[in-house]
Amino acid sequence: MEFSSKLLERAVNEMSQLPGIGKRTALRLVLFMLRQPKDQTIALSEALKTMRNEVKFCKSCHNISDIELCEICSNPNRKEEIICVVEDIKDVMAIENTSSFKGLYHVLGGKISPIDGIGPHDLNIDSLINKIKEGKVKELIFALSPTMEGDTTNFYIYRQIQDYKVFTSTIARGISVGDELEYADEITLGRSIVNRIPFENSIKN
Amino acid sequence: MEFSSKLLERAVNEMSQLPGIGKRTALRLVLFMLRQPKDQTIALSEALKTMRNEVKFCKSCHNISDIELCEICSNPNRKEEIICVVEDIKDVMAIENTSSFKGLYHVLGGKISPIDGIGPHDLNIDSLINKIKEGKVKELIFALSPTMEGDTTNFYIYRQIQDYKVFTSTIARGISVGDELEYADEITLGRSIVNRIPFENSIKN
Repeated sequence: MEFSSKLLERAVNEMSQLPGIGKRTALRLVLFMLRQPKDQTIALSEALKTMRNEVKFCKSCHNISDIELCEICSNPNRKEEIICVVEDIKDVMAIENTSSFKGLYHVLGGKISPIDGIGPHDLNIDSLINKIKEGKVKELIFALSPTMEGDTTNFYIYRQIQDYKVFTSTIARGISVGDELEYADEITLGRSIVNRIPFENSIKN
Repeated sequence: MEFSSKLLERAVNEMSQLPGIGKRTALRLVLFMLRQPKDQTIALSEALKTMRNEVKFCKSCHNISDIELCEICSNPNRKEEIICVVEDIKDVMAIENTSSFKGLYHVLGGKISPIDGIGPHDLNIDSLINKIKEGKVKELIFALSPTMEGDTTNFYIYRQIQDYKVFTSTIARGISVGDELEYADEITLGRSIVNRIPFENSIKN
């Protein structure tokens, strides 16, 4: 791609480093900015810079936060004895949207993945173990993705804490609400039968 | 979408104002930035701001440029008597990539489109007419998209300049190189027959 402007070229190159944005898309986005009022691009530029410079992570759960202890961790109405272990902050947002969980979170920041060079010490696992050791946690809910890496991470954490008196659970795997049985994959369907629940429980929600 | 950080929310909102980028994609991009080194986001932020503040448009052809008269217009090897009229700077880049054109360009900045409220005076048409009036231009090549708006714009300009001695042409419409005849739409195929060219011409390139 030949650019008639170095400034344009630099902007396109920087934009195209974002995942899923190629050179053509970057050019389209940058040309869009040039057609919009100047203020809009300045606002975008400032928002990104300020966020990157000033955003904090909660010192307890490692969720993204503007304050030292995030709003969830500092909320006295949440049950601090139940901790839901998630991979990243998108998962916190997804679970919060359901309004079905009143405990606290612990954001690992990824999953153990030897192929990608991510070991236990690259994740926020030590701080989780310390919370367990303090003895205040009664239940740990594993809510990682049901992949090889997710299962490995669950098992690693499980082994570290098995000497402590804490109940561990994983979120239910089964047929999605609204899904047709015939299209479900056999592993999911199989698990949903093995882990069947009392019918009275299923009509509660 | 519930955000645990106002800074994050602002960045996502600004990003999602770009065309084709919804809230979810914006969140994915912003979280990617948070995982990358700080320098990278600062560089992106600076590149966008600097571009928007400092980029210029060539005073002759209105192409994007870092200098008053762009590199194409100020190149003595380009034929200034042939002007190719295009919609926007992406078209200049596309034609330049072919290395098939040695004249100059004129970027209109859009097409006449009453539905979108774009009239002739919103486009760089006056400066094009002035170039014609000066008498140096021998050929004007219309290279707009073959849409209703493109044709309207071509015709509007054509009417303004028909009293001046200038040859006008449009880029050829026809079957794309490598395309199968049977899949071509009938208008394109019809035009390619009506506007057939001497066989000797077709084997020159």
